[in-house]
Amino acid sequence: MPQTVSDDALTTAPAVDLEPLFAPQSIAVIGASRTSGSVGNAIMTNLVMGGYTGVVYPVNPKARSILGNRCVPNINAIDEPIDLAVLVVPAPHIHGIVEACAERGTHHFVVISAGFKEIGGEGVQRENALRDLATERDLTIVGPNCLGVINAASTVRMNATFARDMPTAGPFGLISQSGALCTALLDYAKGVGIGFSRFVSFGNKVAVKETDLLLALAGDPNTKAILMYVEELSHGPEFIQTCERITHGPNAKPILAIKTGRTQEGAAAAASHTGSLAGSDEIYDAALAQAGVLRVDSVKELFDCAEVFVDPKLPGGWRTGVVTNAGGPGIMATDACIRSGMLLPRFQEYTLKSLRYQLPATASVKNPVDVIGDAKHDRYRVALDAVSADENVDQLMVIVTPQTMTDMNEIADVICDTKNFCGKPIVGCMMGLVDVSQGVRILRSHGVPSFNFPEDAMRAMAAKCRFAEWTRHPLLPYRSYEVGHAAVTKIFDEELAAGRDHLVELKALEVFRHYGFPIVPYALATSADEAASSAAEIGFPVVMKISGPKILHKTDVGGVRLKLQTEDEVRTAYNEMIASVREKTGEDVEIWGVLVQKMLPPGKEIILGMSRDPRMGPLLMFGLGGIYTEALKDVAFRLAPIRENVATEMIRDIRSYKLLEGVRGEQPSDVESVSECLLRLSQLVTENPRIKELDVNPLIVYPTGEGAMVADARIILTE
Amino acid sequence: MPQTVSDDALTTAPAVDLEPLFAPQSIAVIGASRTSGSVGNAIMTNLVMGGYTGVVYPVNPKARSILGNRCVPNINAIDEPIDLAVLVVPAPHIHGIVEACAERGTHHFVVISAGFKEIGGEGVQRENALRDLATERDLTIVGPNCLGVINAASTVRMNATFARDMPTAGPFGLISQSGALCTALLDYAKGVGIGFSRFVSFGNKVAVKETDLLLALAGDPNTKAILMYVEELSHGPEFIQTCERITHGPNAKPILAIKTGRTQEGAAAAASHTGSLAGSDEIYDAALAQAGVLRVDSVKELFDCAEVFVDPKLPGGWRTGVVTNAGGPGIMATDACIRSGMLLPRFQEYTLKSLRYQLPATASVKNPVDVIGDAKHDRYRVALDAVSADENVDQLMVIVTPQTMTDMNEIADVICDTKNFCGKPIVGCMMGLVDVSQGVRILRSHGVPSFNFPEDAMRAMAAKCRFAEWTRHPLLPYRSYEVGHAAVTKIFDEELAAGRDHLVELKALEVFRHYGFPIVPYALATSADEAASSAAEIGFPVVMKISGPKILHKTDVGGVRLKLQTEDEVRTAYNEMIASVREKTGEDVEIWGVLVQKMLPPGKEIILGMSRDPRMGPLLMFGLGGIYTEALKDVAFRLAPIRENVATEMIRDIRSYKLLEGVRGEQPSDVESVSECLLRLSQLVTENPRIKELDVNPLIVYPTGEGAMVADARIILTE
Repeated sequence: MPQTVSDDALTTAPAVDLEPLFAPQSIAVIGASRTSGSVGNAIMTNLVMGGYTGVVYPVNPKARSILGNRCVPNINAIDEPIDLAVLVVPAPHIHGIVEACAERGTHHFVVISAGFKEIGGEGVQRENALRDLATERDLTIVGPNCLGVINAASTVRMNATFARDMPTAGPFGLISQSGALCTALLDYAKGVGIGFSRFVSFGNKVAVKETDLLLALAGDPNTKAILMYVEELSHGPEFIQTCERITHGPNAKPILAIKTGRTQEGAAAAASHTGSLAGSDEIYDAALAQAGVLRVDSVKELFDCAEVFVDPKLPGGWRTGVVTNAGGPGIMATDACIRSGMLLPRFQEYTLKSLRYQLPATASVKNPVDVIGDAKHDRYRVALDAVSADENVDQLMVIVTPQTMTDMNEIADVICDTKNFCGKPIVGCMMGLVDVSQGVRILRSHGVPSFNFPEDAMRAMAAKCRFAEWTRHPLLPYRSYEVGHAAVTKIFDEELAAGRDHLVELKALEVFRHYGFPIVPYALATSADEAASSAAEIGFPVVMKISGPKILHKTDVGGVRLKLQTEDEVRTAYNEMIASVREKTGEDVEIWGVLVQKMLPPGKEIILGMSRDPRMGPLLMFGLGGIYTEALKDVAFRLAPIRENVATEMIRDIRSYKLLEGVRGEQPSDVESVSECLLRLSQLVTENPRIKELDVNPLIVYPTGEGAMVADARIILTE
Repeated sequence: MPQTVSDDALTTAPAVDLEPLFAPQSIAVIGASRTSGSVGNAIMTNLVMGGYTGVVYPVNPKARSILGNRCVPNINAIDEPIDLAVLVVPAPHIHGIVEACAERGTHHFVVISAGFKEIGGEGVQRENALRDLATERDLTIVGPNCLGVINAASTVRMNATFARDMPTAGPFGLISQSGALCTALLDYAKGVGIGFSRFVSFGNKVAVKETDLLLALAGDPNTKAILMYVEELSHGPEFIQTCERITHGPNAKPILAIKTGRTQEGAAAAASHTGSLAGSDEIYDAALAQAGVLRVDSVKELFDCAEVFVDPKLPGGWRTGVVTNAGGPGIMATDACIRSGMLLPRFQEYTLKSLRYQLPATASVKNPVDVIGDAKHDRYRVALDAVSADENVDQLMVIVTPQTMTDMNEIADVICDTKNFCGKPIVGCMMGLVDVSQGVRILRSHGVPSFNFPEDAMRAMAAKCRFAEWTRHPLLPYRSYEVGHAAVTKIFDEELAAGRDHLVELKALEVFRHYGFPIVPYALATSADEAASSAAEIGFPVVMKISGPKILHKTDVGGVRLKLQTEDEVRTAYNEMIASVREKTGEDVEIWGVLVQKMLPPGKEIILGMSRDPRMGPLLMFGLGGIYTEALKDVAFRLAPIRENVATEMIRDIRSYKLLEGVRGEQPSDVESVSECLLRLSQLVTENPRIKELDVNPLIVYPTGEGAMVADARIILTE
């Protein structure tokens, strides 16, 4: 029986305490400047004008004061501890100043200055030296090459950035790898009235991890949703487990992410921008999905999806009730609802009856409810009362188009009332921009998410449904089977010692056997007679394959024979095979013997694979064999280790999953066996970091109850 | 040799002259009202306050004047011809008033009032009577149940709607089936500064066709792009051909459409809203694609895609050059560019050299060019001069993030300059909302499309590329093969006369044979000896199938035998088959004989099909057989008739097209033969409207040069 490993064995170390970074009592701005338009001046202005509640020390030996704050010539002239140092001096000076600050007891830094990894050459060396210093002294450094850090909480009001101004306080925490994008986000947010809690542009992240920043936002009571822009990630399993923690439990918070580099071209652009190699997008897609992070594709989608979380209520399911005063937008909402993966339920009989009784005859009482263009707020109240009470409805969307009779503000009040008494999420869709603006303000001020158009609203509601489902989705343990780990270690040691990083089939099969995979019966025979008796034992028909440490392309040298039915055939084949291989590869080729394998009855062919990404970790792959994987690219990826339910998810993820369920009267395939193979594979690659790449091709799967069987496998080790 | 049919034989009748609707000299508002808040008052207010340049006659027997305009008691009191009558009286009065107006010579009407088809019952009768009147008198009626019509051209300035106010004049013409959506669109457009040329809410369209409205917008010099919201369409081939005309030639204009009812649920909502049955979305998707209409999914996407057409220059290809002052947004743009289907070219050597020479060392000179955060307009000028001149670049996107040093307005001026001298489309992406607003205004006022974020910009640019490619795509003729049309008519006559609307295989094969399809060799045998000699003539192995007018499930009654190798086997099989069928279906079943067919060598199995939609016309279907069509739903649809190149497009459309190109060393399939079959199928269903449904399953296709062969077919006629 498999054991389960406790989560704790695998979780991340406790987060670094980042509170002094976000809520420092005192800040030194090193490189503060009087020159308007300079970065050193912009940061001072933002701190002072933004209403920072602590003490700021501008450090500038040439100025007497900046914005009325008395300057000090250097940090040693400051007579109290400095919680946070913000550096805006040229790159070559950074290292010395950080060291001097650390000497005085400062542990938290924001390095705004550029001139590090992103410029290559000496910049890379400079960055490495700074990283070493940070590690040695246990420092947290945001940046270099960043916009800075904001904490908009009223008790702190710190704007330690050179952005154009302070954002309004709001429910969204944001971390971003791009500083320039931050300026654009802040400007957009100002325009549409979005506020932030904490805002970090982390730049080259020389000595701070995304996971620590994420945990700092997760721990902040003002942050209701975490937004994230990244160009590359690393340490896949740690990232996944941190996000799993943040997105589960009583204080679960959603994480929404833009991860660029989706395309090869984008990844190349990211590499040349950040100076780091981004992995292929499959890895990130897998990691973000496994982490429960809602991946979005654009800034608009990021803000739209965040908007629904201003109301922390989560829907109990996917069933969406819609109330509208116009048919066309109702149809648009219906399409968008279904295409976003949600449901448009039938109302219960009493709801229909109540609506029919109270609404005019021309109204449509089915979902979406159409209260008709001349509806005023009273009719909306009737509809919302009935629909919100319906047991078939998990969440509501209210569409208001600005028609002649529409009393927009009163309708907005009705929506806010409904939000307050009803236990289900409700979203407003005030269609338009100008005439509806007052209504939108009313909704926003009461914490009702508000959208201009039904498509955006539905997309965001679907994101919330996905999040709600994710939080309900249990974090099952990682399975740990009893396996022959030591035996596998020995095989790897021997093979590597012999200079063989590509394991031949025989050795690969042994490894999989030690990890408890069902393997096609096989034996290594070193003579024709031995082959014949092995075959007899295994049972006919058999397959024979030459085995030797250097013989990789067996078919090409006459080293494979199929469908052998008798001992005589096996004997003859053995001798012919040895002769052919010697003839084609040279007399002195090392031959271990001939692998005699049972010829498996036909079943569905499956491919399992793993390739280890140097930054993110081992990426598992699952697909059907042949054209499905090669031509149709219909495969699923996950980062190992995978939890129990993830193996099943992975199998269901492929488009051609239907073929495993059985089409045209076929029996369903034994998906459970495949799932167990995936879990064992996850354990194998997690416990053996020397495996660089492997595949099982094919794994033959039989109808339910009849299992699966590894027919061939390949392993490549790290040299 | 096939003949080609001239386009003229199939094109639409010349458009109805709608100019009196859009530019009337005089308008009667029947039901004009003094009561503020009423629809009859809103229309008067919009006409008068909107600055209508003609004469308005308010018709109201109870009022002396409305907004200073002297009222008339009825239309007969007006002493000049009325070009346009706008009706806002209760539905029961509409018919009589329209008739009276028509009597006086008015041909164009806008019926605002609701109470027709959309309420069912008597409303449907009322609408049918109005349609009959319109047909009889040759009237154009916009509505009933609509918002009205706007022409914002300065020479007309007619706002004959009850919208809240007049939109600004601009480049977009819009027609919409939903009036309420129009109010929302107008409000949104006001907020973001979008203007309209002509604007029509056509409601129930009792007596005006979308195609006529589209042609009226196409002929309007102020309209640069046509926007369309529809819930259902009809007359597929006519719609396609009208749009093809509008989107081709020297005055080609893009048509952008939202067609709701994408999902089953949405289609049901549309049906209950408009009172009409919308067909399945496949039909609309096929029709819009064939028509060259750019289908979009949301209002935001509609306006975004329209925005690029404010500059009528079309890109020569898909290669997009990007200039940015921030790396992150550059990566976002790169991802969006590739994911939208465009290309990010390498620049030519001289471009790179010029950029390297003129930009600072920290700038990135590859595409996307990063001029770095501290760039002012001079650096943008250098980059835009170089990139716009590069021969590898078809169009440009310029990203500006609002950083400390960014001189937004001067940069906007540089972009406008570039637009004026460079022959390629250029798009601005001023990231943000508030700080960038002045820059956006500068771009817009010079006709440069402007966006907030790169994803929206790239999606819109890709739409323009698609349109550009579409306009270059020749409208090839419809092929017309010499076929046995009379013979087919005779078969249909006979079968229908005998009460058989489901044709048995034998008859179906005959029909396909008369239309020149390659058919598996077959013969009908009425005795064992005849079967044996037919088989000998056809060549072994053969397949035998029972044939009789009522025997549809042949396998179930022992009526199919495969792989018969000799004359003796055929003789025995004949006798056994007849016996089995008689036993299982009754002694008196009518048996025509046994169909002896060549047993075809294996090839790729294809399915061709057609089902006739009562509103849109015959929908052709193409897919690979077996699981590809059934389980994976990997099929392509087009409305017949199809032009020559469309058959090939259809084949390439399916995801599994790769399998026809040959995977794993297989030879490519004879796609040309399949394409000819599709063209013949198009002709068959177009010339024979009695065919309700058919399929060829399978059509077996062999390697290139070896053709394809119909192995089985089924036809259902309209009773």
